[in-house]
Amino acid sequence: MTETPHLTFDLKAPGVCTGHLVVPKGADCEALSLPIVSLNKGKGPRVLITGGCHGNELEGPIVARRLIEWLPEAQTCGSIIILPVLNPLAVEAWTRNTPIDGLNLNRVYPGRADGSITERIADAVSRLLLPMVDTVFDLHSMSPTWDSPPMSTTHPVADADLMAKTVKMAEAFKLPVTLVWESNDTFGMFDILAQNQGKVFVCAELGGGTVSSEALSIYEAGVRNALIALGLVEGKTLCLTFRQKPTSQILKMLLSDGLKSPARGIFEPRCSVLDEVKEGDLIGILHPMDSLSRGSIHIHAPTTSTVCAIRSGLHVDVDEEVAFLARPMNA
Amino acid sequence: MTETPHLTFDLKAPGVCTGHLVVPKGADCEALSLPIVSLNKGKGPRVLITGGCHGNELEGPIVARRLIEWLPEAQTCGSIIILPVLNPLAVEAWTRNTPIDGLNLNRVYPGRADGSITERIADAVSRLLLPMVDTVFDLHSMSPTWDSPPMSTTHPVADADLMAKTVKMAEAFKLPVTLVWESNDTFGMFDILAQNQGKVFVCAELGGGTVSSEALSIYEAGVRNALIALGLVEGKTLCLTFRQKPTSQILKMLLSDGLKSPARGIFEPRCSVLDEVKEGDLIGILHPMDSLSRGSIHIHAPTTSTVCAIRSGLHVDVDEEVAFLARPMNA
Repeated sequence: MTETPHLTFDLKAPGVCTGHLVVPKGADCEALSLPIVSLNKGKGPRVLITGGCHGNELEGPIVARRLIEWLPEAQTCGSIIILPVLNPLAVEAWTRNTPIDGLNLNRVYPGRADGSITERIADAVSRLLLPMVDTVFDLHSMSPTWDSPPMSTTHPVADADLMAKTVKMAEAFKLPVTLVWESNDTFGMFDILAQNQGKVFVCAELGGGTVSSEALSIYEAGVRNALIALGLVEGKTLCLTFRQKPTSQILKMLLSDGLKSPARGIFEPRCSVLDEVKEGDLIGILHPMDSLSRGSIHIHAPTTSTVCAIRSGLHVDVDEEVAFLARPMNA
Repeated sequence: MTETPHLTFDLKAPGVCTGHLVVPKGADCEALSLPIVSLNKGKGPRVLITGGCHGNELEGPIVARRLIEWLPEAQTCGSIIILPVLNPLAVEAWTRNTPIDGLNLNRVYPGRADGSITERIADAVSRLLLPMVDTVFDLHSMSPTWDSPPMSTTHPVADADLMAKTVKMAEAFKLPVTLVWESNDTFGMFDILAQNQGKVFVCAELGGGTVSSEALSIYEAGVRNALIALGLVEGKTLCLTFRQKPTSQILKMLLSDGLKSPARGIFEPRCSVLDEVKEGDLIGILHPMDSLSRGSIHIHAPTTSTVCAIRSGLHVDVDEEVAFLARPMNA
C-alpha cells in the first residue's frame, strides 16, 4: 500500500491544536513529520503562514515560532495554520535546496506524490493545506549572500482583481518596502499555484545576511500588522524603522532591474540597501581574482533608482546578478 | 619528475611585482595559480598579508585588493607580500573548507607536498612565503553564520616575549576589539606554524554575516593602522566607530566562554555584539523544531561579560556554540 500524506490531527478542530504534517517515505528517505499548529476561533479569514522553504532563510521559522507564542491569546476570529519549517532537511543543512535531491522546494509546486522528497513535501502542502485557506503568507528572506530591507513582495498577477487584493495585503505588512517583482523564473512557485486558485499570496522577504534580533522585531511586527488588517487580531499597527531609512515605500522591479556582473570575480558592495542612486553612481566593484594585473571594474547604476538588494560580497560568475534596483510603483 | 611549488617571479625584486604562486597539480586537481604581489622598498619590516583562507570569508580578499591600489604610492620602506586568496577553490564555492578534499586550510599547516590540494596549498605557503617575512596578517572573518565586530585576534603564545609583541601588533590595528582567544582547536593552524618560527602573527576576524561597504572601511583602516605602526606607511591612525559602540576594547576569551546550545533546534539571537551582559541576561532562544509542543529554551549569560560573537540564526546541534562571551583583558 502506498502511503499518502496526512495530518496527525483535524485542522478544523476548534481552539489551538498542534501536531504534524506527515510527508510519506520514498526511495530517497524516510517519512518526514513537519510540526504544525492550527488556531481556530470561529468564522473569519483563513490564513496559512509558512516558513523554512529555503534552509538558509531562518527568519521565517523564528518569526513563526514567535507568533505561536502570542497568537492563541490575541486571535479574535477566523483560522490560522502555521507551519514554521516546510523543509527541515534544508534547514538542518543550512542550504537553499534540499540536500538529498538538490531541488528548490519553491520551484516544484504542486509537487508529485511519487516524486523525490522535495516534490513530496510540495505535494503534501498543495493537497492538505492550501485548500484550507484563502490567504497565504510565505516567510522567506533574501538569503545570506544578499543584503536587503524587510520587504513584502508579490510577482505581477494576471488577474487584475487578485493583483489589487494581493498588493493591498502586501502593503498591510507596513514593512519598509512593498515590492512588485517582475521575474521570469516563477515556474513551480508556491505563489503561482496559490494565485491560480484565486488565493491571495504574499511572500515576505525578511532581509538578507545576518539574522539579527533588531531585524526580527521588524519582521514580527510586519506579520502582526497584516493579521490586524485581516481582522484576525486586534491592535495597533506598528511601523518600525529600518536603519534610519524611510519606511513604507512601494516599489516595483522590472526584469531589466537586475544588475549583472560584467566579469567573474569577487563583488564588493559600495552602496547600501535603500540608497537612492542616479545614473552613473557607484553600486559596487568587481575584482577579477585570477590575476592582480587585471584592474577592478566599477559597476554603475544605469538609471535613477532605489537599491533594493545587493550582494554582500560573493564570488560571482559573469552575468550573475549583483544588485536589484527598483523604482517607485507609480513611476 | 614531481612538480614543486614555485613563484613566477622573484619576490625580492625591487618595486611592485605581480605574478603567481603555483601550487602543483596532484591526483585530485590541476595546478593552481594564486595571484600574488610583492612590494619592495628597501630595508625595513617584512610583512605577509593573506586572505581567502576560508571561502565564505570574503572581507580579506576585498581588503587585500584595496591595499594593492594605494600601497605602491604609500609605502615608505620594507617589504610587503600580498596574497588576496589563499584558497580559490573554496572562494569560488563560497564554502569554509575546500570542496575537493573537504579540508580546512587553516588546520593542515605546514601541509604536505604530496598531499591533497588543501595540503599542497599550505605546503607552498609554508615553504615559499613564510620564510620571506617576520610578520603575518591573516585576514579572516567569523563567517556568514556569526555576527561579530571587527577584531584583531591572537591565541595565547607560550613565549612571553613573542606574546607581548603579538598583542602589541594586534592592538595597533585599532579595531573595535583586540581579542586574546583561548582555543583547544589550534592544531595545524597557520598561526601556530608562524609563531613556532618566532614570527608575529595577527589574525584579523573582520566581522561576520554580511560584507557591507561600511564594515569594509573599518577593516581597511585597521590594516592601514597596523602598517603605520610597523613604519611601512606614513600617516595618521584612523579609529572608525562600529555600530555606535565603544572602540579599542582589549578582551580575552577563555575556553569556557563559548556558550553552548542546550538542545537541537534553531537559535534565535536576542542580544547584539558588544552588548555588555550580566549573569542571567537573555542571550538568545533555542527553538526545538521537531515539535511545536516542546517549549523554546531561553539561554542566559552565565556571568558578567561582553558579547563578542553570536550565531546569526542557525539550526544547531546540542552542545554547538551559539555565542562567544569575553571579558576585559586584565579582569
